[in-house]
Amino acid sequence: MPRLSAERLAARRERILDAAWACFGRYGYAGATVRRLEQATGMSRGAIFHHFGDKEMLFLALVDREARRIAVMAGRRDAVGLMREMLADAGAGDGHGGLELWWEISHRLRTEDGFRTAWATHAEAVTGAITRRLEHQRGAGRVRSDVPVRALALYLQLICEGLVSQLADVPASDELHAVLDFVTDSLR
Amino acid sequence: MPRLSAERLAARRERILDAAWACFGRYGYAGATVRRLEQATGMSRGAIFHHFGDKEMLFLALVDREARRIAVMAGRRDAVGLMREMLADAGAGDGHGGLELWWEISHRLRTEDGFRTAWATHAEAVTGAITRRLEHQRGAGRVRSDVPVRALALYLQLICEGLVSQLADVPASDELHAVLDFVTDSLR
Repeated sequence: MPRLSAERLAARRERILDAAWACFGRYGYAGATVRRLEQATGMSRGAIFHHFGDKEMLFLALVDREARRIAVMAGRRDAVGLMREMLADAGAGDGHGGLELWWEISHRLRTEDGFRTAWATHAEAVTGAITRRLEHQRGAGRVRSDVPVRALALYLQLICEGLVSQLADVPASDELHAVLDFVTDSLR
Repeated sequence: MPRLSAERLAARRERILDAAWACFGRYGYAGATVRRLEQATGMSRGAIFHHFGDKEMLFLALVDREARRIAVMAGRRDAVGLMREMLADAGAGDGHGGLELWWEISHRLRTEDGFRTAWATHAEAVTGAITRRLEHQRGAGRVRSDVPVRALALYLQLICEGLVSQLADVPASDELHAVLDFVTDSLR
């Protein structure tokens, strides 16, 4: 393998993660075979695993990156708006809009103690980001002030987890959008 | 095996289901081995499978009975109250208060088309029961009238699914009770 600068290595790593994310999201962990990962990334297994060791480590790197991305987004954007995008993605095309990967995460949280421990830090970062954003919005008079913001942040996360879970057995529907309208109202 | 009256057969069937429910709830599907099912029911595998064919059919009979039970309860009792009980059960003792079984149900909804189809009828029955109860409460002035009751029913189910999902990685906490307080308020 030719030598690459640190910058180009990092860029290649990101490119593998982007393609792998779509592949895991579409086929799930078990379905994202090495062959499919090769097709998705346009790289050989040797090149992929040079960067990530093995499929399990690639998956953990994806989870780590995604959790950080969500914490950043949750601090910047409206949580209900993000959920609406999730609904739209789930309804478009096949592969459940990346939900396969979330179901794998849910499954591991239930069955792997080590994963649960590693995840706790990420979960707290997301709660913290949503809480700070709600505080800011409360300051601007856009969020009700009779309920602790942290309770509202946990409430939004419950709704989001319920949505991820529900989308396994019901299609994304206008009814779910109506529920999100109600959630938006309930925060005011 | 001695002949039993239809009534005694039905009673024995129920007794097996009660014990199996606790066993699956504590150990999960894979962990509820035939040996553990024998211990839990106090019956031999021959007696158990005389009634239910095999472990898979026993599981499906459990899911069917539980879904009907929930639809009946949802029509009679306050949904948030039922969620509070779920929280209390999850926090008490080991075995996640029966949640293992719900996680198995979630997992099958994601991975088995046949199961998802069979489940849709149950899910609609629960939504219907919650909707009728909310309508009744709205008639008595206890539920807000500016949002369709069906949206509120779906909202309550989202919260409940979020709770089941969240209890996989966070312990039942006072914070979750505070969220349920807020949910109760949001319906008024």
